[in-house]
Amino acid sequence: MPEPVPVTMSPTLAADEALERRRRAGEQVLSLASGEIGLPVLPALRERLAAAAGRNAYGPVAGSAELRAAAAGYWGRRGHPADPDLVVCGPGSKPLLFALMLAVGGDVVVPVPSWVSYAAQARLAGARPVEVPTLPGEGGVPDPAALRAAVTAARAAGADPRCVVVTLPDNPTGTIATARTLRRLAEAARDLDLVIVSDEIYCDLVFEGGESAPSPAVFAPERTVVTTGLTKNLALGGWRTGVALLPAGPLGRRLRQRLTAVASQIWSTAPAPVQEAAAYAFEEPPEVVGYVAAALRLHETVVRAAAGSFAAIGAELTPVRATCYLYPDFEPLREQLLRAHGVADAVGLATLLAERYGVGVLPGTAFGEAGGTLRIRAATSRLYGATEAEQNAALTKSDPLRLPWIKASLDRLAAVLDDLSRSAADRDATPARV
Amino acid sequence: MPEPVPVTMSPTLAADEALERRRRAGEQVLSLASGEIGLPVLPALRERLAAAAGRNAYGPVAGSAELRAAAAGYWGRRGHPADPDLVVCGPGSKPLLFALMLAVGGDVVVPVPSWVSYAAQARLAGARPVEVPTLPGEGGVPDPAALRAAVTAARAAGADPRCVVVTLPDNPTGTIATARTLRRLAEAARDLDLVIVSDEIYCDLVFEGGESAPSPAVFAPERTVVTTGLTKNLALGGWRTGVALLPAGPLGRRLRQRLTAVASQIWSTAPAPVQEAAAYAFEEPPEVVGYVAAALRLHETVVRAAAGSFAAIGAELTPVRATCYLYPDFEPLREQLLRAHGVADAVGLATLLAERYGVGVLPGTAFGEAGGTLRIRAATSRLYGATEAEQNAALTKSDPLRLPWIKASLDRLAAVLDDLSRSAADRDATPARV
Repeated sequence: MPEPVPVTMSPTLAADEALERRRRAGEQVLSLASGEIGLPVLPALRERLAAAAGRNAYGPVAGSAELRAAAAGYWGRRGHPADPDLVVCGPGSKPLLFALMLAVGGDVVVPVPSWVSYAAQARLAGARPVEVPTLPGEGGVPDPAALRAAVTAARAAGADPRCVVVTLPDNPTGTIATARTLRRLAEAARDLDLVIVSDEIYCDLVFEGGESAPSPAVFAPERTVVTTGLTKNLALGGWRTGVALLPAGPLGRRLRQRLTAVASQIWSTAPAPVQEAAAYAFEEPPEVVGYVAAALRLHETVVRAAAGSFAAIGAELTPVRATCYLYPDFEPLREQLLRAHGVADAVGLATLLAERYGVGVLPGTAFGEAGGTLRIRAATSRLYGATEAEQNAALTKSDPLRLPWIKASLDRLAAVLDDLSRSAADRDATPARV
Repeated sequence: MPEPVPVTMSPTLAADEALERRRRAGEQVLSLASGEIGLPVLPALRERLAAAAGRNAYGPVAGSAELRAAAAGYWGRRGHPADPDLVVCGPGSKPLLFALMLAVGGDVVVPVPSWVSYAAQARLAGARPVEVPTLPGEGGVPDPAALRAAVTAARAAGADPRCVVVTLPDNPTGTIATARTLRRLAEAARDLDLVIVSDEIYCDLVFEGGESAPSPAVFAPERTVVTTGLTKNLALGGWRTGVALLPAGPLGRRLRQRLTAVASQIWSTAPAPVQEAAAYAFEEPPEVVGYVAAALRLHETVVRAAAGSFAAIGAELTPVRATCYLYPDFEPLREQLLRAHGVADAVGLATLLAERYGVGVLPGTAFGEAGGTLRIRAATSRLYGATEAEQNAALTKSDPLRLPWIKASLDRLAAVLDDLSRSAADRDATPARV
């Protein structure tokens, strides 16, 4: 008999709502918790959605032919030749990931750390998450050797892992697994007969000088499902639209049938007006390409500046190569944090940052990390402005760090971190002014 | 270890897609399979959605404060005093129903017949549907005595039913359970400690002269969750928006926490621009009220005309009191159907109607009926016109039955049914011209 699933609120969305309550109560808050992108809708997309407001039919469960063709083209330009019949659209890539777990069945391998919802979704789907650590500096992909060992052990213990979820580029670490690791992942998945679900929602947010993120679909095309959406590159989280690309061949055909069946029973279709605007976005006309490039430059500039403040106090940080996320490790400050603040773990650190300083971050435990570590995730995507005018300025100015609101946020972050890193004695002598 | 869930495509959406393929192939089809409402978006709602196209933030998981307040007002005007904090919005009432099953946990009692997705969703949620027949002429609500017996037996057999789903007014039968039955349902649910999930998406589509459908929330307010949406009354299926009202008191608070947790992990939020338009709709300004009244009159007129054609050939039909659905029973024609067409059950009948006549209906088995019966469901909601101009005429003309496209569809239905009911000998003598 099914027990009520052990589900807790998504930590990112919960943190957002908590900070919003504090902001409304008049507190000064610095929101680094959720990865919601605080940028305006591109006017061309706004116009497309407005023009599609009369669309009220369900249309095909998998999404309109136009949207599927556009998404196939988008992937084709990124080295994944795609048949529109193998594209399935949903109200966000989040529900698609959940439905894929139901469609594949069995238990689910997730990297540690990884996005807050993979393991929670696996549990909601009745599966047990099998947690496998990532390699240093290569977040988002389980260490292939550890993956082999974990899946073999899980199967020996009666579990039934059938798919592995990966994130390229990675959330929470902002790093990108190497092609070599992906090749080894592909070999392991083939040997273990695992489906690879590759969440590539950040694939357009790789920093300048970096190559585009590699995809397991290149190394294991017969068994890799790729998902993406418009939430991150085009700041359209509130529009709820995502797409999945299933592998060509018999597995893909079987998965498509099961995925659309699950979709038909859980959500019917993605919102029709949004589908029309999304089709336009996936076609990547020049203004869309320009917006994504501007947003990427902004993320890179602000993330690197924020990273500097963490590095300045001695937190460890793998260089961030993509996304708007930092995943600093306060291990080198463990003694100071304990002495000055009584903080012994990431949850304590996040709580201190929120309650003493009004700074919202997420503890590494939200991403599946063990309790004792001192890693936190900080997202810079809410620092770009409180109004559309500010956000537009952030997108278009050549030096966004000089915009007063961005500068103020980054200065505040630096001051908070500085205060945090001082010893108790220092802090008593000089009351913090943060 | 979780097996892949036994999931099949939603029969309504599958039938829609199959008919659409035939239509594109140039065949003449009469689409009575799905309950999609073939009417245009009310211009005022179109404008609201267009004006909200710039909304791209997630906002609260449970939905915007404006939408929750508007939905609470809507329910308040229907005899359910509602706290906006107990309203949870989702991308359709379908995902809300699924998430409620996960939030309540345990197994799920469903009436037979009932909407195609309840039992399928229960299986996706890892639950076993416990099927309980309805009372004659009172579709949508399990016979309370049979409910007691079934739940007791299921528990004795190790199952764990914790909620019962009901539909008021009912899909597929177009009937409405009586207040007496609901009172008995409430008593049984209290004695058995079951949550009642009351799908009231058709509550605004009760025909003239009928009273509004009663709700179990009146008889068991402490344990009833009510769901609805804008799909049926305002023809906004493709917009994907639904709302749930949780009961006041400790159960409701617990359910709200679990439901929003599930929602945060599966879909995050309902599409933000749609939420804004939906808030306006739930406020029920005069043009919204006028649209619903016009649509209701149209459904009633066309459903009654179609019912006449089924009755004319001797099919049994409980008088339809709401919705756009008919649920005729061809049992009186069993011998003719077998002799003339080799048809022995509802699936055979639906197949014959689709393949020989191009008429799409759903067999009763799609609604959980046993295999041998001859009941089918026919929806009239796709007969109102192929273009927006035709659909607007259907909404506004005093006698929609005289509109050529509606008349042609109904005439064709009558001719098909007439041909179907004739004996093999008759049919050989006089080739059908349908």
